Amino acid sequence: FFMSHQEIQYAVIFTSVLNENSEGYTEAANEMEELVKNMPGFMGMDSSRTAIGITVCYWDSLEAIENWKNNQNHQTARENGKKVWYKMYDVKVCKVLKHYTFT
Amino acid sequence: FFMSHQEIQYAVIFTSVLNENSEGYTEAANEMEELVKNMPGFMGMDSSRTAIGITVCYWDSLEAIENWKNNQNHQTARENGKKVWYKMYDVKVCKVLKHYTFT
Repeated sequence: FFMSHQEIQYAVIFTSVLNENSEGYTEAANEMEELVKNMPGFMGMDSSRTAIGITVCYWDSLEAIENWKNNQNHQTARENGKKVWYKMYDVKVCKVLKHYTFT
Repeated sequence: FFMSHQEIQYAVIFTSVLNENSEGYTEAANEMEELVKNMPGFMGMDSSRTAIGITVCYWDSLEAIENWKNNQNHQTARENGKKVWYKMYDVKVCKVLKHYTFT
C-alpha cells in the first residue's frame, strides 16, 4: 500500500491476463510503476498478479488520469500491451464514494 | 473474469494483508466467493492474492452492496477477518464512470 494522506478521489482498476509469451512485460511494468509515481495527482497504487493481474491506481482528479493516459512512455507501453503482452485487459475509471481502513 | 453482460455500475475494491497466522481464511474466502455470486445485483468479480490481496466486486446498485454488507455469513466472516486473518484491509466503494475492454 503506497498511499497519500489526502483523501482519494478516483480509482482506476486495471485487470489483465497475460499472453503465453509476454516478452519485455516485467521490465515495462516496473518502468511504468516508477513513472506513474511521479505523475501529478497520483495518490498511490495496489498491485497483485497471479493468473490475473489487478492494479488499482488512485488519483486526485480525472484530469490527472487523463494526463497519465497521454504520457508518451505510457502510450508506448499500452501499444506493446495490445501487440505483445496481453491476451485481454480491462480498464475501469471510478469515483471513490466511500473509503474505510482497518489496521 | 466473471462478468455480467449488463453495464457495471459500482465497484468495491477490497485490498488486504494477511496476518502470519490466518487459520480458516482460505475456507472462509471460498465460502464468501460462493455466497456473493448469488447476491442480488452482483455483476462479477476479479480476485488476486500475492503479498497483498485485491478483490474487486462489481454491482448494479449501492443498495445491492449494502445488502451484501448486511448478509449474516458475510458479517461473521468480517468479524473473523478483524479478529484473526487480517493485519490490515481497506475498502473503497466506487462509482464506475468509464469502462473499456481489450481482447
